Amino acid sequence: MVLSSVILLASSGTFADEGQWQPYQMPSIADKLNERGINIPAKQLADLTQYPMNAVVGLGYCTASFVSPQGLVITNHHCAYNAIQYNSKKEHNYIANGFLASSKDQEPSAGPNERLYITEAVTDVSAQIIDKLSLLPLIRYQEIQSKRKSLIKVCENDKNYRCSVRSFHNGLEYYLIKQLIIRDVRLVYAPPKSVGAFGGDIDNYEYPRHSGDFTFLRAYIGKDGKPAAYSTDNVPFTPKSYLKINADGIKIGDGVFVAGYPGLTSRYRLTSELQFANDWLYPTLAARYQLRINTIKKIADTDDNVAIKYAGTLASMANRMKKYQGLLDGFKATDIIGIKQNRQDDFLKWLAADKMYQGYQSQFDQLETLLNKKRIAMQTRHYFEHAQSSALLDAANKLYRLSQEKHKPDSEREEGYQERDIALFTARLKRIDSRFDRSVDKTLWQQDLQAYVKQEHRVAALDTMLNNPDKSITISDKLDGLYALTSLTNQEKRLAWMTADSSQFETSTDPFIRLAVALYDTNMAQEKEKKTLLGELSQARPDYMKAIIAYNKAKDRPIYPDANGTLRISYGKVEGYQSRDALYKQPFTRLEGIIAKHTGVAPFNAPNKILDAIKKQDYGSHKVASIMAEPSNWICQLFSCSDKPEEFNSVPVNFLSSVDTTGGNSGSPVFNGKGELVGLNFDSTYEAITKDWFFNPTITRAIHVDIRYILWMMDKVDHANNLIEELELVRN
Amino acid sequence: MVLSSVILLASSGTFADEGQWQPYQMPSIADKLNERGINIPAKQLADLTQYPMNAVVGLGYCTASFVSPQGLVITNHHCAYNAIQYNSKKEHNYIANGFLASSKDQEPSAGPNERLYITEAVTDVSAQIIDKLSLLPLIRYQEIQSKRKSLIKVCENDKNYRCSVRSFHNGLEYYLIKQLIIRDVRLVYAPPKSVGAFGGDIDNYEYPRHSGDFTFLRAYIGKDGKPAAYSTDNVPFTPKSYLKINADGIKIGDGVFVAGYPGLTSRYRLTSELQFANDWLYPTLAARYQLRINTIKKIADTDDNVAIKYAGTLASMANRMKKYQGLLDGFKATDIIGIKQNRQDDFLKWLAADKMYQGYQSQFDQLETLLNKKRIAMQTRHYFEHAQSSALLDAANKLYRLSQEKHKPDSEREEGYQERDIALFTARLKRIDSRFDRSVDKTLWQQDLQAYVKQEHRVAALDTMLNNPDKSITISDKLDGLYALTSLTNQEKRLAWMTADSSQFETSTDPFIRLAVALYDTNMAQEKEKKTLLGELSQARPDYMKAIIAYNKAKDRPIYPDANGTLRISYGKVEGYQSRDALYKQPFTRLEGIIAKHTGVAPFNAPNKILDAIKKQDYGSHKVASIMAEPSNWICQLFSCSDKPEEFNSVPVNFLSSVDTTGGNSGSPVFNGKGELVGLNFDSTYEAITKDWFFNPTITRAIHVDIRYILWMMDKVDHANNLIEELELVRN
Repeated sequence: MVLSSVILLASSGTFADEGQWQPYQMPSIADKLNERGINIPAKQLADLTQYPMNAVVGLGYCTASFVSPQGLVITNHHCAYNAIQYNSKKEHNYIANGFLASSKDQEPSAGPNERLYITEAVTDVSAQIIDKLSLLPLIRYQEIQSKRKSLIKVCENDKNYRCSVRSFHNGLEYYLIKQLIIRDVRLVYAPPKSVGAFGGDIDNYEYPRHSGDFTFLRAYIGKDGKPAAYSTDNVPFTPKSYLKINADGIKIGDGVFVAGYPGLTSRYRLTSELQFANDWLYPTLAARYQLRINTIKKIADTDDNVAIKYAGTLASMANRMKKYQGLLDGFKATDIIGIKQNRQDDFLKWLAADKMYQGYQSQFDQLETLLNKKRIAMQTRHYFEHAQSSALLDAANKLYRLSQEKHKPDSEREEGYQERDIALFTARLKRIDSRFDRSVDKTLWQQDLQAYVKQEHRVAALDTMLNNPDKSITISDKLDGLYALTSLTNQEKRLAWMTADSSQFETSTDPFIRLAVALYDTNMAQEKEKKTLLGELSQARPDYMKAIIAYNKAKDRPIYPDANGTLRISYGKVEGYQSRDALYKQPFTRLEGIIAKHTGVAPFNAPNKILDAIKKQDYGSHKVASIMAEPSNWICQLFSCSDKPEEFNSVPVNFLSSVDTTGGNSGSPVFNGKGELVGLNFDSTYEAITKDWFFNPTITRAIHVDIRYILWMMDKVDHANNLIEELELVRN
Repeated sequence: MVLSSVILLASSGTFADEGQWQPYQMPSIADKLNERGINIPAKQLADLTQYPMNAVVGLGYCTASFVSPQGLVITNHHCAYNAIQYNSKKEHNYIANGFLASSKDQEPSAGPNERLYITEAVTDVSAQIIDKLSLLPLIRYQEIQSKRKSLIKVCENDKNYRCSVRSFHNGLEYYLIKQLIIRDVRLVYAPPKSVGAFGGDIDNYEYPRHSGDFTFLRAYIGKDGKPAAYSTDNVPFTPKSYLKINADGIKIGDGVFVAGYPGLTSRYRLTSELQFANDWLYPTLAARYQLRINTIKKIADTDDNVAIKYAGTLASMANRMKKYQGLLDGFKATDIIGIKQNRQDDFLKWLAADKMYQGYQSQFDQLETLLNKKRIAMQTRHYFEHAQSSALLDAANKLYRLSQEKHKPDSEREEGYQERDIALFTARLKRIDSRFDRSVDKTLWQQDLQAYVKQEHRVAALDTMLNNPDKSITISDKLDGLYALTSLTNQEKRLAWMTADSSQFETSTDPFIRLAVALYDTNMAQEKEKKTLLGELSQARPDYMKAIIAYNKAKDRPIYPDANGTLRISYGKVEGYQSRDALYKQPFTRLEGIIAKHTGVAPFNAPNKILDAIKKQDYGSHKVASIMAEPSNWICQLFSCSDKPEEFNSVPVNFLSSVDTTGGNSGSPVFNGKGELVGLNFDSTYEAITKDWFFNPTITRAIHVDIRYILWMMDKVDHANNLIEELELVRN
């Protein structure tokens, strides 16, 4: 009895859980899902109109899911942060204290910009896009853009939908994604930031973790059943289905899967691209970021106003820096370049021997040539692009561009300048007020300009601005002059330029506007160069992908497209990992770990209500005696395994699994093998940061909030009985 | 077959490996040793004249052991650091590059102060010490001192021996320890500091660890077979026995034991003493240390001379600070005060109910009263004692004291001022030159004086020095005056005071000497107060210990005396531990971990010869396929246990065991169950720092160098074939 399970478990360790699969692909990996104990039919997972995929929704750059028939939605606290911030006032600080609506009429709007996106259809439009494309690169690029815009335009005829055409396999395929937009989203229940982001930036990308990174929202629609902007007349949305929640959660070794909207991966890039990222791109970007972080911090230290305005910028730069560092550390810790080189060598060997694909060898060489051209272009443009980093110059550039674009027919305008983009364009122009400080902007810009003048790739228009016959006038003096004479710092004046004609720009005396006009031709020439290269790559990359797919098929490797912000499913199992030599990270953390980390000082300032409940061991039905599957449990009781299952006796807080995720998967539902909700994805481990380039199954782990922690918080800490009753709880 | 082992392993997890046992006690714990698989007869371990105990030697504040018939000795690199430093010159920097003597005549002296101590006899002298002691506390104290001195004097009649009388169980018992002194010690083989102290201060008290903390020395004696000072005529010492080395090392779960000279523990202290240490003593000392560290660093940053002079001081203060922090963190992480209080409550309940020991209740209360008095005295004296922290004032105090003591008969002099102490006294006076900087000394002293003047417990003699009718003269001005007028900074003048009469002190114009004379009466009065309290405690503590021993016997708890620098044995098993929630530290680190930690920057700058050998996987016969014992190995292959034994395939570098150690156990041999050498003890984990007060079996781990790493270094890296041939290597 026991031995047969033993053999099952042992054999299941032999394949990796790589792949961010398009839902339609699920039947093709049905065997692997079964091996992981994922028993929900693969066909059902492939169907976006069926449970559970029709309960999974997008939320800007995150994922969420319906968990009640009345439109209740669960996602990460960090994904709902804007909604919580929008409702926080001095007199009721929901960020600090959390929020729980006692009834539906107490649910405030999550803000006018909060949206839920329900993917209703994903249509293969490859034939329409790729058919009869020009062989001239720039024309080809423009044809692709034009076809994409037309498809979107038709699709968005119903204003309740957002549509997009995404490239898959680097241009080998194109899909039209049609998403219903829910525009009335409300805040229902959020823990304090000290729970939702316990550990804060310090614990970001780290494990063991103790984060209550969850929040409940609710979708509302008009009485007519159609999406509508916020109105007290609106009614809760009835989703096509909603997720069952398994209150027994999950155990070590169990199979799990997640569904969501992963943003971007680069798994099919060539070794030379990784090498370039490792040798030049990431170190260069990281060095500039570090300088900017240090500069802003130094000014913010003595200026509270700057500290407030740049808090968000600093946090996202810190996150980005940790990612760069993680990438560079990861490339060093595992020789990913060497591994990819070996695979590429093997691919080329296979290519040379394969009768059908032999011809692709020259196309591979052509791709390498193009990539080399791209690298040189990137390095050449790099300093000039950053030399325009002032927020005011950036606004001036965009405004002048708008004045050029708006005279074209909407379908011919550049993306970002079409009618559908104007609301966001306006919002961004307004937002400068709350994120701009003259002294910071100037100092950072000056640093970029100093880096620019030190290198050889110069642009005459910019040099003209910088040079002065009087050598005693420094760059700093020049910039002081620009800031002194501009009126772009005034929101009203800034917005007024949206309706101005090009000629008004060309005769303006505002120095930022004049600089934008002076740089325009160079910027446009560089954009043209970029587009031409993209046009060339839009032929070369799909050819390469065709060969790679054939190779992977021959080698029985998983074949799935790089992440591109569209709905995907990935699967894996609950499992710890070897973090460093002699350091093993176990897959579940427990409530007592919160007390151990608690210092009282943010971000390790758990609220007293939680500390008290833990100290009282008020765990109720959420307590778990063992987090081990049965056979291992039996063995480990005898062998004192390091996971010590017999001693768990707590409520699990976070857990690890080997599912394949990336940014955008935040808030993704984590399902057990029956398709019941057992957690929310919210982060990855530090060692896993390199997975955007290479999925290493031994160290790649995603971090999830355990549903038992969420239910314990609702039940024992916040007494959210009204919400608990709304959920469909099941047990094993 | 497998199941029976299973049950054995499971049951062996149920008792803790607490206890730093006196060798004579070993037969009393023979059952526990057997349970751990330690099969060498307990009687044999109890016999200091037999293998292996007669091969274990003391080395100042460390432990070492003989490993060849020609007096070859192995100990920690950090224990032999002075010997390596003594021989390092600009032209051959053994600290940086390591050292290997190609033959015996290439072995340099380890320095004139290097000593090996071989414990030949441990005699119970309790009856002699305790018999007929006065009940007057001060007299009692003096009687004990006087009896100890007489015993030592007789024992040290043979100048080849060092003798001491140590108190066991807080004065319940006294033993006379007789140690043969080897005075000609030579340096044989030391790895570079980048191996011996890989990870340096950063990794101090940390695990996972990758330290090659070993060094070989050799003992030499005169041709007449008697210990002698260094001479080229001397010959290698033939030890009574030497340790066999098991080249197969040890596996997870195996029983081990260590022998050595642990320095000081406080396991039998009352809860109130721990509370005081936690609430006042450690925080107060840590705050002062931190201030001193910061102050010295600030000066050293701009003064290389200061940096060199205070490098050793800073390193030891950093170590001490980490220890204080570890103690305070540990008291918080586990509620040790609560646990001790519960035990003490249980003890008092037992005491109240026990017919034989009931009477000890009032003695317990009396002890608490005395301890309270002690605490108040400590807090009262604290600032005055530190107000004498200047190295020059300390020297002046001691010199004046010497002038008082030296007129007494030798046996009546205070310890530290007897004939046997004069060599060390002189050495310390000389040493000031290499460790003293006027500006550092003044700044630190001034900080202590400022703390002194801020509190209420003032001493008139010191206040007189500090006060000045002219309020514009600051403490700083005063101190500048003292340093300007003293001649104690001159070594010759300092030493000259050793032969001066008291009257010369009393009429001296040296301001430090005059201050020492002025403070003398207060210091002596405080010393008398201390001695009186010690006399009182020398009655109360042994009574308490009698009752505690009876209680522990009744509860079947281990009964062993607190560590006191005498030879002890402790046992345990090779085992990892749960460091934090979801973080398990596995018991073995491997060579590849060195590469992962290597940055090229000290202290993570492994030498190329090691990196190359690892990269080439040049592991030879030192490679270990699995570090798991057989039954677990079998299970874990099936269950993918976190220790992943099937994947070890490396040379173990360091390992953990549950043996009970403390400072002084550095260099202790780690034995397998047959009494063969399998490693060297060198550190404890951070979580284990609190073990000086309370042995917590679940987190207390000692860190050892694996013998296989040492042998690999000798064989594959340094080609020390001559030494390998000298060893007696055995295999399982």
